[in-house]
Amino acid sequence: MEHLEEYERRELWSKIQNALFEDKIDQFRAEFLEMHPYDQAKIFEELDTDVRMQIYTYLSPEEMAEMMEHLDFEMVGDYFTEMEPKFAADILSHISADDAADMLKELDRNMVASYLTIMDHEAASDIKELLYYEEKTAGSIMTTEFVVIHAKHTVKEAMLHLKKEAPGAETIYYIFVIDEAKHLVGVISLRDLIIAEEDWFISEVMSDRVVYVKVGEDQEEVARIMRDYDFLAIPVVDFQNHLLGIITVDDIMDVMEEEASDDYSKLAGVSDMDRPDENAFEAARKRLPWLVILLFLGMMTATLMGKFEATLNQVAILAVFIPLIAGMAGNTGTQALAVAVRGLATGEYEKDGMAKLVMREAGTGLITGTTCGFLITGIVYLWQGDVFLGILVGISIMATLIVATLAGAIVPLIMHKLKVDPAVASGPFITTINDLISILIYLGMATTFLSLQLLK
Amino acid sequence: MEHLEEYERRELWSKIQNALFEDKIDQFRAEFLEMHPYDQAKIFEELDTDVRMQIYTYLSPEEMAEMMEHLDFEMVGDYFTEMEPKFAADILSHISADDAADMLKELDRNMVASYLTIMDHEAASDIKELLYYEEKTAGSIMTTEFVVIHAKHTVKEAMLHLKKEAPGAETIYYIFVIDEAKHLVGVISLRDLIIAEEDWFISEVMSDRVVYVKVGEDQEEVARIMRDYDFLAIPVVDFQNHLLGIITVDDIMDVMEEEASDDYSKLAGVSDMDRPDENAFEAARKRLPWLVILLFLGMMTATLMGKFEATLNQVAILAVFIPLIAGMAGNTGTQALAVAVRGLATGEYEKDGMAKLVMREAGTGLITGTTCGFLITGIVYLWQGDVFLGILVGISIMATLIVATLAGAIVPLIMHKLKVDPAVASGPFITTINDLISILIYLGMATTFLSLQLLK
Repeated sequence: MEHLEEYERRELWSKIQNALFEDKIDQFRAEFLEMHPYDQAKIFEELDTDVRMQIYTYLSPEEMAEMMEHLDFEMVGDYFTEMEPKFAADILSHISADDAADMLKELDRNMVASYLTIMDHEAASDIKELLYYEEKTAGSIMTTEFVVIHAKHTVKEAMLHLKKEAPGAETIYYIFVIDEAKHLVGVISLRDLIIAEEDWFISEVMSDRVVYVKVGEDQEEVARIMRDYDFLAIPVVDFQNHLLGIITVDDIMDVMEEEASDDYSKLAGVSDMDRPDENAFEAARKRLPWLVILLFLGMMTATLMGKFEATLNQVAILAVFIPLIAGMAGNTGTQALAVAVRGLATGEYEKDGMAKLVMREAGTGLITGTTCGFLITGIVYLWQGDVFLGILVGISIMATLIVATLAGAIVPLIMHKLKVDPAVASGPFITTINDLISILIYLGMATTFLSLQLLK
Repeated sequence: MEHLEEYERRELWSKIQNALFEDKIDQFRAEFLEMHPYDQAKIFEELDTDVRMQIYTYLSPEEMAEMMEHLDFEMVGDYFTEMEPKFAADILSHISADDAADMLKELDRNMVASYLTIMDHEAASDIKELLYYEEKTAGSIMTTEFVVIHAKHTVKEAMLHLKKEAPGAETIYYIFVIDEAKHLVGVISLRDLIIAEEDWFISEVMSDRVVYVKVGEDQEEVARIMRDYDFLAIPVVDFQNHLLGIITVDDIMDVMEEEASDDYSKLAGVSDMDRPDENAFEAARKRLPWLVILLFLGMMTATLMGKFEATLNQVAILAVFIPLIAGMAGNTGTQALAVAVRGLATGEYEKDGMAKLVMREAGTGLITGTTCGFLITGIVYLWQGDVFLGILVGISIMATLIVATLAGAIVPLIMHKLKVDPAVASGPFITTINDLISILIYLGMATTFLSLQLLK
């Protein structure tokens, strides 16, 4: 089938709704469980409470678990709260440990404690291990449900072991090899295992050059490695090289999406764009913090300009170029900021070093500044017939572009050195600081020109 | 081994360099081929021409192919040009067809034609098929190197077929099932195939609910589907449901990265941020187009303000609030734009519809506008002691925020309806348009206030 379009889902949904309405449990199960768990989740999200309560009695914990893995994890807390605790704990024990850990992070601590106590001990132990790791590190996105084989096994023994373990493992396409002390010693792909001769030893067919990450590695770095090496999974080890877990490519795709949204939000000055299904109040709440900060920064600019009131009074035409200059400053800074943040995220700047980057940005500012400066001098002269006014605006634009380019590039680098996420130096912040500096340059130069009697 | 850090790569590189310098071909091959192709590529990129020429004589076409798949495709044209055409064509025939097609797109047409003529016919035919499809669609990112099995095979026959075909296939972890007419009829994972009984028929163990995409589907949509359903691969069909190719998750991760960079670049008003290793001239070249456009838009604003010269002359203090108002307009518009573009990309707005979105943005603008409006009225009054000035600025801010929010949200929606990539409505463009509108509102209102003799 083609991936379900919205209207197709609604058609199926009517059928399912009828079955529910008429309490036809078998018919409901037949229709609902036919669908991919992702589509089941999409439908489940839209239901009313009483319908959900009905579904809890129609599906087993395993079936609920498969579907719930595709729900928005920030919402599942509400669902668990409406269920019998035992039912919720059973579902959690069937959800893959890494997803279960992520869900529990959204819940009240007491609830988490009681679920972990009620549920199957082995599942609880897997989950507790994952809850321990810091947000956005390899440890927090890995799963402990993977298959290992020993270097001393034969290919035949390994395949038998695999068939047995396969149902409970997140993936069996890369199988990691350990020694007796559980150190990671090698890896073999299922593809290579199938092609190999049955009586060979694993140690002979495996690759001992395993790429791994340490448990504290940043998730963005893990994503970069998996993308660069085209891996389907990557092992996670502790400081002594014991194999603790694996991270699979589907989880990394979610991380990539999260990180991209994050960077994008920050450039725009909106907090947390992840949840679009909101009303006007929620949307306003996400944007107001930055807007209020910018309001105050704007007042600072106004106060600063107030000190140049005499200059503005004398040459009223000066005011009309302020939006132009401030606007160019803002946009230039944003461009430089975007390139710097993106470069830091993709790891490009580790290679060349900060000094080289700053030199290049200075050069870029010089080129763009000179080009735009000459351009605007010509335009202003043609418009107002005043060559000194043209020169004033031209020099201001040039100085502004150089300063704004450097500011937009250097601020995120400084933040990176201070171990702060450089994307926090958001677009609006850099823009407004650059506005301020550019106006200072412009009006300061204008005052100087006036005192030299170059303007009328 | 841990993923190679830069310094580790340089250490290995010294060893390899020595081997090359002393013409020790076996030693070079031993060290170089030990590394992951991605690391080989990283080293290869840094070499001088004469060293590369040496390496072309030390490695086979297959070995070159494995490494070159990890190079920057925009650069490989230069490398192919320095090789003997036969060598280049051999390499291309060993590179997976989808990557080969992408590489050839960067080359001169005549070169492409001669490579396709010289190389192995089957490889050439696969590549030609892929070159046919439009950029950024499923057809252009799929590969034709996949394994199929027939619904009538037994599990045992399928496994034997797999072992034979595995080396040439991009992935064997999802195996797609076709009928005699090559229609896509089902899918089975390798995991399920291994667990199944040998004498069952494929038609009995496969899943007939296959999620697929049409060959013309947009790549961003394909990425979304693979991410939502957690697939490792997805089949691509034509309008009659014949299986044409598959798209694997590693290619999709590259697509996701490309799309994220794309959106980010457009928000910032920088063309094509994909290639960071550039000098100041290249960087300036990417930013100048937008800067020059904005320069002209800024002049429009200046001209517009020129018409209000009388008003500005009368109440000089008006000018100091222009950066504040224009700045708020710009940032608000960028926030709304970012949310709208992201929402369109993730498919959220298909569900709720445009009207609901516009209503919500209007509400958001109203709330943020009223809040900021009241705030600024109070601040201005405290600063200048003039309540009408405060009201003027407050109302201007409020009107500005409402208009800017709506503009930032509606422009990308209109572009989406017109089938233009909404991210083209870049940050700087929306910002400057909003600047213009906000100044118009502000000065227009100021003139009205003056005529009503509310300002001194």
